[in-house]
Parts: sequence; C-alpha cells; structure tokens
Amino acid sequence: MTASIPLLDTPVALIDVPRMQRNIQRMQQRMDTLGVRLRPHIKTSKCLPVIQAQIAAGANGVTVSTLKEAQHCFAAGIQDIFYAVAMAPGKLAQALTLRRQGCRLSILTDSLTAARAIVDFGQQHDERFEVWIEIDCDGHRSGVRVEDDSLVGIARLLDEGGMQLCGVMTHAGSSYELDTPDALQALAEQERNLCVRAAQRIREAGLACPEVSIGSTPTALSAQNLEGVTEVRAGVYVFFDLVMHNVGVCQAGELALSVLTTVIGHQQEKGWIITDAGWMAMSRDRGTQRQSRDFGYGQVCSETGDWIDGALLTSANQEHGIITLTNAEHVDITARFPIGSRLRILPNHACATGAQFPHYLACDATGQVHNWSRLHGW
Amino acid sequence: MTASIPLLDTPVALIDVPRMQRNIQRMQQRMDTLGVRLRPHIKTSKCLPVIQAQIAAGANGVTVSTLKEAQHCFAAGIQDIFYAVAMAPGKLAQALTLRRQGCRLSILTDSLTAARAIVDFGQQHDERFEVWIEIDCDGHRSGVRVEDDSLVGIARLLDEGGMQLCGVMTHAGSSYELDTPDALQALAEQERNLCVRAAQRIREAGLACPEVSIGSTPTALSAQNLEGVTEVRAGVYVFFDLVMHNVGVCQAGELALSVLTTVIGHQQEKGWIITDAGWMAMSRDRGTQRQSRDFGYGQVCSETGDWIDGALLTSANQEHGIITLTNAEHVDITARFPIGSRLRILPNHACATGAQFPHYLACDATGQVHNWSRLHGW
Repeated sequence: MTASIPLLDTPVALIDVPRMQRNIQRMQQRMDTLGVRLRPHIKTSKCLPVIQAQIAAGANGVTVSTLKEAQHCFAAGIQDIFYAVAMAPGKLAQALTLRRQGCRLSILTDSLTAARAIVDFGQQHDERFEVWIEIDCDGHRSGVRVEDDSLVGIARLLDEGGMQLCGVMTHAGSSYELDTPDALQALAEQERNLCVRAAQRIREAGLACPEVSIGSTPTALSAQNLEGVTEVRAGVYVFFDLVMHNVGVCQAGELALSVLTTVIGHQQEKGWIITDAGWMAMSRDRGTQRQSRDFGYGQVCSETGDWIDGALLTSANQEHGIITLTNAEHVDITARFPIGSRLRILPNHACATGAQFPHYLACDATGQVHNWSRLHGW
Repeated sequence: MTASIPLLDTPVALIDVPRMQRNIQRMQQRMDTLGVRLRPHIKTSKCLPVIQAQIAAGANGVTVSTLKEAQHCFAAGIQDIFYAVAMAPGKLAQALTLRRQGCRLSILTDSLTAARAIVDFGQQHDERFEVWIEIDCDGHRSGVRVEDDSLVGIARLLDEGGMQLCGVMTHAGSSYELDTPDALQALAEQERNLCVRAAQRIREAGLACPEVSIGSTPTALSAQNLEGVTEVRAGVYVFFDLVMHNVGVCQAGELALSVLTTVIGHQQEKGWIITDAGWMAMSRDRGTQRQSRDFGYGQVCSETGDWIDGALLTSANQEHGIITLTNAEHVDITARFPIGSRLRILPNHACATGAQFPHYLACDATGQVHNWSRLHGW
C-alpha cells in the first residue's frame, strides 16, 4: 500500500526510510570493521521490512524480546533467533514448538534454578536446547556476575544435562545513563572485558563456550576494540531517538521515527498549541527527563521534519498533546500553528512510541509512503 | 474462547469481571440517583464486551477519543456516539462517512476557526453535523472559558451555519491531582456550575443549548448535586487503578485490571525479583509519581490478587520488571518468589496499561477466562 503524506490521517508513526537505511549501514559497517557479527534486536521495530533491511545489510540472525517476535520472524523465514530474556519454565513448551518446526531458537538463563528447568524439560522432550548464559556487566538488571560461583555451575549443569551452551551474553543497559565519549568507551570496554572473562572462566573449567555476545546501541557505537567478542546485539540504532541523541551517539538528522500530528486547538493566553498526538501516540516514556536535556514528550518539528527550536510537547493526555514554546511571547501561535496544520514530533524512546501503533508509514526516498505492519502483544 | 488461568502465558492483562460489574453498577446507580444520564468514555477499555456491559447497566450512548473507536462501536450496533476531542478539519470526511452510514455521531469544537471549518464542510456536503462546544472549567487542557466572547460566537456560527448545537461539555481533568473529598466536591461543583453557566449564556443569546455534559471519574463520584446537568461522561471507573485509589474514589478491592506476570530471575544481593512484565506490559505511565503514594510501575499482588504490602514494581525495562520489597532483609526472595511463580501487578493507569495489550483475559465469577479483544491504533 502506498499513500501520499497529505492524505494520511493523524496521528501516524512515520519512518524516514533513507535515514533508517543510513543508520543500518552505519552500525553494520562499524561491526564489520570491528570484526564481529551483528545480531540486531528487533524489539525496537517489531516490523518485518525493517528487519529484512537489517539482514540485507549483513546482519546475522536476530535478537527478540518475546517468543511472539520469534514466531513472527520464523514465519518470515528467519532461522537464527536468540530470545534474549531469561527463560521462564512456563514458556519452554512454546520454545520447543518453534524448534520442532525447524527454528534455530536459542534461549537464555542466569540461574541454576532456571537452567535446571531447561535441562529437565529438554530431557523430558528429548530436545537439546541451545542456551546462552547471561552475565551482569554493570549491575543494570539481570545476569550472573563473572566472579559468581554459579557461572561455571550453570554451564556445567547445561552441559552435563545434554543442552548445548551457545556462549555468554551481556547487555550494558546502564549506557543509557551516560553522555560523554570517555564514559561510553569505558563502559563498552567493561562490557567486553567482563563478558570475555566470563567465557574464559567457563573454558578454563573445560567446557566449550563458543560465543561472546554483547551490546547496547551506545556501547556498540563507542567500543574501540571488541577482541574476544563474536557478536553484538543492538536495537534502537535503527531509528535512534531523543534519548540516544542526549547520550550523544546520534545527530538530529539521524532520527528516523517521528509522529505526524495535527493542530486541533490553542489556549492562546497560555501559549498552548493543542495537537492530536497525546500519550497514546507518543507513549508515556519520559526517558529524557533525567538526562542533560529534557524534551518533555518530544521535540516538535515542521511537517517536513525541521526542528522548531524551543518547541516541545510538554504535556500529554490520552489523545491531546500540548506544545509550548520557550519564547511564546513573540509568536502569534494561532497564525504560526493554525488549526489543521501538521507537525512532526520526535519521540524520547523509539521502542516505546513505535509500540503505540499497529503500523508505521514508511516514507521512502521517492516520496512514496508504505504501510508497514508492526507486531503488538505477546 | 475460554481458558484457565494456569494455562495462560504471561504477561497478560486480566479483567476481574465481578469487580468490573460492581464498578459499572456503582457509577450507574450514582448517576441514576443524581438524575442524569451516563455516557461512558470507552477510551479506557476500547473493548466491546466491557462497553456492552455498561450499556446493559443503563448507559446512554458512548464517548470516544478517536474516530476508530466510533467506527468500532457503530459496527457493533451502538448509534449514539460523542467524539469528545476537538474536531480537526482533516477528520471531517471520516465523520461524514459515519453519519451517512446512519451513526448518530456528534463532534466537538472550542474555537471559531474549527467551528467555521465544520460549517463550511457541512454546507458543502449538505450535512447538519451535531456539534458540542467544549468549556474550559479548570484550566486543565482545552475548551472555551465561560466568560469568553467566542462562546456565544461559536454557538451562533454553528446555528446560523445550519449545524445542530447539541450543547456544552466540559471535563475537569484536574480532578486527578486532588485527593480529599472536600477538594473533589468543590471541583465537581465548579465543573457543574461553569458548564451550566455556559449553557445559560448561550440560551440567553436566544440559541438552543439542550445538553450540559460534564465529567471525570473523580468528579462524577464526588458531585453532590448535578442541577442543570443532563449527562455525565466518565471512563476509568470501569476498571479503576492506583491513581484513582490515591485520589480516593475507590478501594483496593475495586481495582478490576491487573497484569499477570511470571518471576524469571532474582538479584538476591539487591533484593530484586525480576519478572516478565516490563514497561511494554505496564506502560510507561508513572501517574502515582506526583501523588501522595508512589507505586512505582505498580502494586504487586499474589497470583490470586491479594496485595503484598511493600512489594512494588519499582523499575521497568521493555520486557523486564524489577520488584523490590520495603523489608527485603527479612525475606528469602528466591524461596518466597521462586522462578516460575506468578504475581499480579495493579497498574497506575488502567487506560495506559490496557493499551499495551491486543486483548484482555476476562475472568468471570465462575472462574472461566474469556478472550476479549481490544482496539489498537487510529
């Protein structure tokens, strides 16, 4: 399906396809230069044409955050899928079904208890699951610490239980809190170093640990050396967003996702421009709130995508967004932003904003607009 | 479709149907007692069985926040639909289509500019649109102020342009910021009084203004007298949530929406219980953050729904939620919340959390679970 932008009802989520393609190229080339494979995290887009563009550019396999994403990718012909959330015992049956259908699904654990459940279920169903062990490299969330006794214990349990240990993985999620090249490079090196050390500990125990998988968009774009690493996972780089802009790993001209909105009213005395993009369109993500520059619910741009300095979506109800200007006293807002005129809002967090929409409208270099559907739910 | 809770994969959004039915009865009886019609705002559930339960209990028509909701309701046989977001000129063609199909869709404006667009489009297509005028009763968002010259001007423009003025409407959205019965009653009276005065101003100008529509869940449940009001609109009362609990208009036992989640890991030293309900399931709504009691991303309950005191979903990534306990030092979290065990999380904001799911699992009084689909997107 194609349509021209003037015909689109708002709010809609627009992908700037040339920007997206450049973002994909940039990350792929960087990984190629660093000598590692790239396994994009598709939780950002949950959209097949986006994923296919990543694979066409050289990605090896995909990372998913839900088994529904895995099913969706597998149905589209993608074989090598890593479900990178610690496996709940109750989801093993679903994973088994996928593997029996021929999907090379690999799963994740960070505890002896969950590893034991994988082994028991695998043995019961005569399935040699491919399993990664999650390493905690920065205290951000889950994972085993490198020095923890259970690290080798989990690897041995999986091995002796007849499962296949893929390797170790980690995610330096705390990179989102940084905003200087030095700090980002240091965290990228910490992520690499600890994950490589984890693999070494397992190998020193006499077990195979073929893969070392690391990644987050900020560390992937900051790492200077990935010795010992075999693959990188990253997601949000495909669109980038205001959080990444604040982190410092992208320029304004690289943000590929925006929400097209219509002005529906004003409160002139307060300087409010009211739009039809509220939190239902933007999401409630306020990821820039604790960063150096708070963009409210989003940076306002013209309909064609030019930043309007000082114009932010400062407040959001379900289907109402309120735009304010930092220098509103010199602007006749009803004349400058008349009812019916349209604006684009750049989101704080592309993963969260995309999730509010059943599809994206993808604008290609020729001006054609394509309807790209997006996965929703579990 | 029915299923038993033990078979459900997580995360899922559960509706406690007996609680929902009691919430519906409570609001309907209150409106019956106050002598006004109830026009529920279906933006909370976006779910036909919920809406049908509201209508079966005595609701008159529905309020919607998008034209897609209007299409969805009309396709299900609901005729009287009020689209309660200021009409953008670009959406008039969609509204016309619905009306030509026989839908009694009414629309909203709060400016001369938008009213002029409605008149022009209506005249051009020989359509007598039914139009409400939005009143600003509390400075919360949009609407004309009662004393504003444009109020009567808009009414006259619509009337002389051949449109049908339904009446005036307002929404005291600032009620969400209150938490004492006195303040809520005062705001409810302000909402009533200003909207009734707006209708009087229009009537004094010699124009018909049949309807006076007000409402928000907190003011609807606090109003002592609705003299002059003809209908009340309210939405979130159907499920309630932690924000409403903090406002003080519902008890813990009235919260009808929760997210069922599975424990997938721990960080024992930090006292973290890691679940598969992250912000993708809960939404990023942090509505209780500025209230008297901050529930993080949600209140943790047992699988059967009992509050676990001091257990909150304090942090959320896309598919990971981190639960912490206020008195974690006395609890062996891996024994008390083992991997694979399940919990329910009560959300801050039912409208936002519901929107993350393609369907609800509705648990009725007999223990049966029904799959109720939910509208997504625009």
